[in-house]
Amino acid sequence: MSEKKRTEISELGEFALIDRLTSKFTAKQSSTLKGVGDDAAVIDAGNGEVIVISCDSLLEGVDFDLTYFPLKHLGYKAVTVGISDILAMNATPEQIILSLGISSKLPVEALEDFYEGVHFACEEMGIDLVGGDTSASMTGFVVGITAIGRAKKESIAYRSGAQINDLICITGNLGAAYMGLHLLEREKRVLKGIDNPEPQFEGYEYLLEKYLKPRSRKDVIQQLAEEGITPTSMIDLSDGLASDLMQICRSSKCGARIYLERIPIAKQTSALAEEMHADPVVAALNGGEDHELLFTVPLSMQEKVMRMGGIDVIGHITAESTGAALVTPDGSNIRLKAQGFKEE
Amino acid sequence: MSEKKRTEISELGEFALIDRLTSKFTAKQSSTLKGVGDDAAVIDAGNGEVIVISCDSLLEGVDFDLTYFPLKHLGYKAVTVGISDILAMNATPEQIILSLGISSKLPVEALEDFYEGVHFACEEMGIDLVGGDTSASMTGFVVGITAIGRAKKESIAYRSGAQINDLICITGNLGAAYMGLHLLEREKRVLKGIDNPEPQFEGYEYLLEKYLKPRSRKDVIQQLAEEGITPTSMIDLSDGLASDLMQICRSSKCGARIYLERIPIAKQTSALAEEMHADPVVAALNGGEDHELLFTVPLSMQEKVMRMGGIDVIGHITAESTGAALVTPDGSNIRLKAQGFKEE
Repeated sequence: MSEKKRTEISELGEFALIDRLTSKFTAKQSSTLKGVGDDAAVIDAGNGEVIVISCDSLLEGVDFDLTYFPLKHLGYKAVTVGISDILAMNATPEQIILSLGISSKLPVEALEDFYEGVHFACEEMGIDLVGGDTSASMTGFVVGITAIGRAKKESIAYRSGAQINDLICITGNLGAAYMGLHLLEREKRVLKGIDNPEPQFEGYEYLLEKYLKPRSRKDVIQQLAEEGITPTSMIDLSDGLASDLMQICRSSKCGARIYLERIPIAKQTSALAEEMHADPVVAALNGGEDHELLFTVPLSMQEKVMRMGGIDVIGHITAESTGAALVTPDGSNIRLKAQGFKEE
Repeated sequence: MSEKKRTEISELGEFALIDRLTSKFTAKQSSTLKGVGDDAAVIDAGNGEVIVISCDSLLEGVDFDLTYFPLKHLGYKAVTVGISDILAMNATPEQIILSLGISSKLPVEALEDFYEGVHFACEEMGIDLVGGDTSASMTGFVVGITAIGRAKKESIAYRSGAQINDLICITGNLGAAYMGLHLLEREKRVLKGIDNPEPQFEGYEYLLEKYLKPRSRKDVIQQLAEEGITPTSMIDLSDGLASDLMQICRSSKCGARIYLERIPIAKQTSALAEEMHADPVVAALNGGEDHELLFTVPLSMQEKVMRMGGIDVIGHITAESTGAALVTPDGSNIRLKAQGFKEE
């Protein structure tokens, strides 16, 4: 490859990279309703229903650090990561397949812990594990997750359906997982080399849980169905609000305006951010891994959405030409930027 | 984990490990027709058809070595690995999802090469790429593959359906991919440190192709359908004949008897084995990665199977109590052993 042009991945960013790599591919199968470019692929089941399938991976050293990530929680989180993508299509998750790359440093008991977490999450969500392949890994623990769900064809929420004036809605709160990770990293740093480390997590238990054992929002999908709301667009909040909202804008060819003071941030998130001299809004905008849902609904649905409870309307969809902006309390507009491909 | 019992994975072997990890899981979804324990999961589409989904991964340093594995071929092979599992259910592959973990040492052009191979294989097989996620990897190139296919419910071939006296059939020939890998490893060793290495592959091009660019046997699935044959059981030959046949025996609660002189081995496989003072039968039994199909059919189908061409009947299914054995030309029985979990 020495004579060929060499473009660093970081020059392109993840979205442009995927576009560049997959632009040649065109769908040939009539059952392919949605291919590259959403939370999950959508396959026609042939009877008014669709099967929704997503593929994710968690890599040791990038997505988790086994020095402080209990394997039981990692198993639970793997299920959440997988089915969040299914929920983000407004579909009901039904099955999950795992494919593990296992380094020899892990004993069987560690894998049992991992599967205990998987089992707990599967029971809680009522989903089936339908495949559990393992192979050896030279390079740390690798977790491949395929999640499978089902929906009526007309109730699928793509990223591409947002319309001007639609309300931008958020479930739960943002930035907590990110601050939980930072707390764990801080304690790891502080306690390095100490024999019987006693990390200080008091008062921040919620943040740890949001990072280590995030719950998927199946409840929200059920509530939306009960209220008769089909979101015009939806995405799993895994990369941070800024990046994920820009995905909606990009797919729906629209802009967005969100209001800083409306972004839901938990007390513990603000408290730890203050303690660490960080900005909780930055955690909410760029932190990621919250696995909450971002969705849009027509303005006429406002009352129904508010009735659901636990949903915040943080802004609205605008014309594509206006771009995506964050409005601060003093009225100034800050242009949102997606975080690029994180080379770690 | 220091006070807990530590069982090495190698003590258990892969099959026992999977059993131990997944024994607690029971299917709750009515759409789950087949969960853990076959080439792919089988999901009821609800109209007499099923959706078949498999999940695989290829890890750098374990499944491929980028010093001699061209990325274009790796892309092609990733598709083959995925859809072989679908074919092994007697289903038609329709879609594939990739999830890549990318180390920063790879430039965009290398990923383009990889996707060119993926595209070529997708075009050749008429399947759609329906997802192409990427994330950063600290630990080498990781390829997660989810393959999706479809079949009539009654034509699915599970591993568990083999019956006593069924014929054991093999497509293509075995051991070639394994010898191809050994040839590449030998040339890498011999040419280590040499500036302009000129590896000697002459006469062994077929072996290299079987390892670097194996074709999936969609043609066989189509021929089976044309002949009206539904195999009683089927498996993708990825771990080697011994291991994969024992999977059939284990799932179908049966034994097997195969005849050494009937195992199809290509001329180049035998020639290189001789040159390397290796036994080509060992390559066929334990080599793996051939991505050919092993299937069983009732004795009454013998004529139909022979009419297909390119299929070898290598033995028959016996009672469970007799175990799985290889019969040598002098009539002695060698008990087959599955290769364990390869800790590399």
